[in-house]
Amino acid sequence: MEAFSDGVIAILITIMVLQLRRPRGPSFSDLRAVYPSLLAYVLSFVFLAIYWSNHHHLLMTVRRVSGAMLWANLALLFSLSLFPFATSWMSENGFATDTVASYGVAVSLAAMSYTVLQVVIVRSHGTDLRLKNALGRDFKAKFSFGAYLVSIPLAFADRWLSIAIFIGVATIWFIPDRRLQNYVESTTAVNDDV
Amino acid sequence: MEAFSDGVIAILITIMVLQLRRPRGPSFSDLRAVYPSLLAYVLSFVFLAIYWSNHHHLLMTVRRVSGAMLWANLALLFSLSLFPFATSWMSENGFATDTVASYGVAVSLAAMSYTVLQVVIVRSHGTDLRLKNALGRDFKAKFSFGAYLVSIPLAFADRWLSIAIFIGVATIWFIPDRRLQNYVESTTAVNDDV
Amino acid sequence: MEAFSDGVIAILITIMVLQLRRPRGPSFSDLRAVYPSLLAYVLSFVFLAIYWSNHHHLLMTVRRVSGAMLWANLALLFSLSLFPFATSWMSENGFATDTVASYGVAVSLAAMSYTVLQVVIVRSHGTDLRLKNALGRDFKAKFSFGAYLVSIPLAFADRWLSIAIFIGVATIWFIPDRRLQNYVESTTAVNDDV
Amino acid sequence: MEAFSDGVIAILITIMVLQLRRPRGPSFSDLRAVYPSLLAYVLSFVFLAIYWSNHHHLLMTVRRVSGAMLWANLALLFSLSLFPFATSWMSENGFATDTVASYGVAVSLAAMSYTVLQVVIVRSHGTDLRLKNALGRDFKAKFSFGAYLVSIPLAFADRWLSIAIFIGVATIWFIPDRRLQNYVESTTAVNDDV
Repeated sequence: MEAFSDGVIAILITIMVLQLRRPRGPSFSDLRAVYPSLLAYVLSFVFLAIYWSNHHHLLMTVRRVSGAMLWANLALLFSLSLFPFATSWMSENGFATDTVASYGVAVSLAAMSYTVLQVVIVRSHGTDLRLKNALGRDFKAKFSFGAYLVSIPLAFADRWLSIAIFIGVATIWFIPDRRLQNYVESTTAVNDDV
Repeated sequence: MEAFSDGVIAILITIMVLQLRRPRGPSFSDLRAVYPSLLAYVLSFVFLAIYWSNHHHLLMTVRRVSGAMLWANLALLFSLSLFPFATSWMSENGFATDTVASYGVAVSLAAMSYTVLQVVIVRSHGTDLRLKNALGRDFKAKFSFGAYLVSIPLAFADRWLSIAIFIGVATIWFIPDRRLQNYVESTTAVNDDV
Repeated sequence: MEAFSDGVIAILITIMVLQLRRPRGPSFSDLRAVYPSLLAYVLSFVFLAIYWSNHHHLLMTVRRVSGAMLWANLALLFSLSLFPFATSWMSENGFATDTVASYGVAVSLAAMSYTVLQVVIVRSHGTDLRLKNALGRDFKAKFSFGAYLVSIPLAFADRWLSIAIFIGVATIWFIPDRRLQNYVESTTAVNDDV
Repeated sequence: MEAFSDGVIAILITIMVLQLRRPRGPSFSDLRAVYPSLLAYVLSFVFLAIYWSNHHHLLMTVRRVSGAMLWANLALLFSLSLFPFATSWMSENGFATDTVASYGVAVSLAAMSYTVLQVVIVRSHGTDLRLKNALGRDFKAKFSFGAYLVSIPLAFADRWLSIAIFIGVATIWFIPDRRLQNYVESTTAVNDDV
C-alpha cells in the first residue's frame, strides 16, 4: 500500500511538469507569460510534497491493512490526482475566480480524505491510545481544513486572499509532522533504511 | 513481478489525469462540458484501483514465479493499459454507442486475463488445494465477467444500460476480496510491512 | 539499480499508451484508422516486456555493482527509451520505409547494449564460470541481434519483411530465459518474494 | 525517501521522451529537423542519470532522516523537475541564447541543491568525520558548480561555449563517485541487493 501510494504521488508530482505551459518564443520575455504556470506548479509541488511526507509517516503507524483503510487511502490518492487538473486550469486562466475556488475544493477534498484516513488508522489501534495521544488535538490539521473551506467562498470576494491562504497553509506545514515521527521512533526499532 | 505490476498500475491510474479534457474557459459553466470526462475518469480510477487491490492480494499467494505466470500477468497489464485509451475515447465522444461497447471489450479483456492469471497461480499450487478452496466457486468473478460480456452487445440496444452495468459491477467489487486476504493470513506470518 | 531500471521500463511501457493515436470520431470505422497504431503498440509492449523479464533475471546474478555495469545499464535504458519515439513515428506514418528502418535501429541498439551489459556482468564474476556456462553460446541472442541488423537494410527492399522479422524474433523470445532462471535457482536460496 | 526520489527521477528521465519533437514526415530528412531535440534529450538523460547515481550513493550514507534533509531532498527533486521544461524550451528554439542561459540556471540550481543536501547529511553525522573526509575537498563538485554559473552569462557572449561546458561537465561526471562508494563499503556490510 505504501509503495503504491508513493508511486502514485511521485507520478502526480512529476506529470505536473508535463502541463507547464511552453513559452511561445525563445526569449526571456516569452518566459514572463508562463510565470503564473510556474508559480502554480511550485505551490502544487509543495502541497503534494507535504502530503507525501505526512502520509509516509502516517502509514508507518499502520499495523494491519483493513479494507476501510485501503479505500480511505484510495480516496486520498484520488483527491491528490485532481491537483494537476486544478493547477493547470487555474494557471492557464490567469487565476480566474472560479478556477481559484476549484483549487480550494481540491485542497479541501485532500485534507478531508487525509483526515478520514487518519481516523480509520487511529481506530484500528483499538484500545491502544498511544497514536491517538501522539496526534493530540491536531490543531494544525483542523485549522488548515477550516482555512481551505473558507478559501472556496472567499475566492468570489477576493481571489488573491484565497491564494494567500494556500501559500500560508503550505508554509505552516513545511515542517514535517514531528508527532508522528516521535511516535514511530518510540514504538519501532530505528529503521536504517532511508 | 509485484513491484513492476504495482508500478505499471500506478502509472496507468495517473496518466488518465493527463487525458482529462481541459475546460475551454475560466468559469464553472466551462467545467460542465468536461463532466463526462471527469465521471469516466472516476469510473476507470475505481476499476483500476479494484484490480490493483485484488491483484496485490493474489500475487501474495504466489510461491514461485513461472513463465506462464509472467505472461499471464503481462496480459493482464496489457488489458489494463487499454483503460486510458478506452476511457478517453468514450468520454470525448459523449458516451457514443460504439465507444461504450469498446469500453465493455476492455473490461471484459481485463476480467478474462485476471481469471487466466488466477487459474495459472492456483494450478502452480499443485495438490495443495487450500488456495483453490479459499477462492471457492468464485461466483462474484463469474458474474462480473458475464455482466461485462453482456454489456458489449447491450450497448447497441441502450448504451446507458451498459454504463449502469459498469457502475454496478464496480460497486459490488468495492469491498476487497476477503477470501484471499484470509488465505494469506492463514498461511503466512502477519506481514508488518504495509 | 534494479528498482530504478524496473521503474524506467514500467514508465516506458505505459507512456506508449499516451501516444496511441486517438480516433477522430465515435464509431468503429474511425477505430480502423488507428489500427496500425494499436498493432505497433502491441509489438513494442511485447519487446519491452521481454527486455524487462530477461533484464530482471540478469540483474539477479549481479553480486556487486561496478561503475561499468551502471553505465552499461543506463545505455540499455536509453536504448529502450527510444522505443516510444520509434513506435509512434513508424505507426503514424503507415509503416513507411525509413520509419521501419529506424525501428530496426532502435531494436538493434537495445540488443547491443543488452549484450554489453551481459558481458560486463559475466566478466565481473571473474574466474567463477558458472554464469558464463549457464549462458552457453547464447545462440538465440546472437541470432536475434543478427536478424535486427538485417532488418535495417531489408526495410529498403521490402519493409514488410523487416516487420515480419520484428514479430518473428519477439515470438521466439516469448518464453523467458530458462538458463538464467536455472542459474539463479542453483546459486541462491529460493526467493519467496515475488 | 530513497524509493520516492528514485521514482521521481525515473519518471523525469522518461517523460522527456514524451517531449521529443515528432518528425513531420516519414523520411530520414524529416528526422534531421528533430536532431537538436534528440541531442538535448541525450544531454539531459546523462545529467539526470549522473544525479540519480550520485544521489543514490549519497542517500546510502544517511543514518536518520531529519526534516532538513527531507526538504533539501525535495529542493533537489524540484530543481531536477525543471530539466524536461528547460530541455524542450532550448531544443525547440534552436538553442537560442536565452534558452541556453535558462538551461544553465537549471543545472546551477540542481548543483546548488545537491550541495546543500550533501552539507545537511554531512552535518547530521556530527563528530563522526569519516563521511566528510571521504568527500574530501570535493574539487570536482566545486569546479562543476563554478562552470555552471559561468555558463549563464557566457551564453550571451557565445551560446555554443555554454553548451560545450554542459557537455564537458557531464563527461567528467560520467564516472560514478568513487569516494562515496568507498565510504559506503567501508562502513556497511557488502550489500548483495543490487
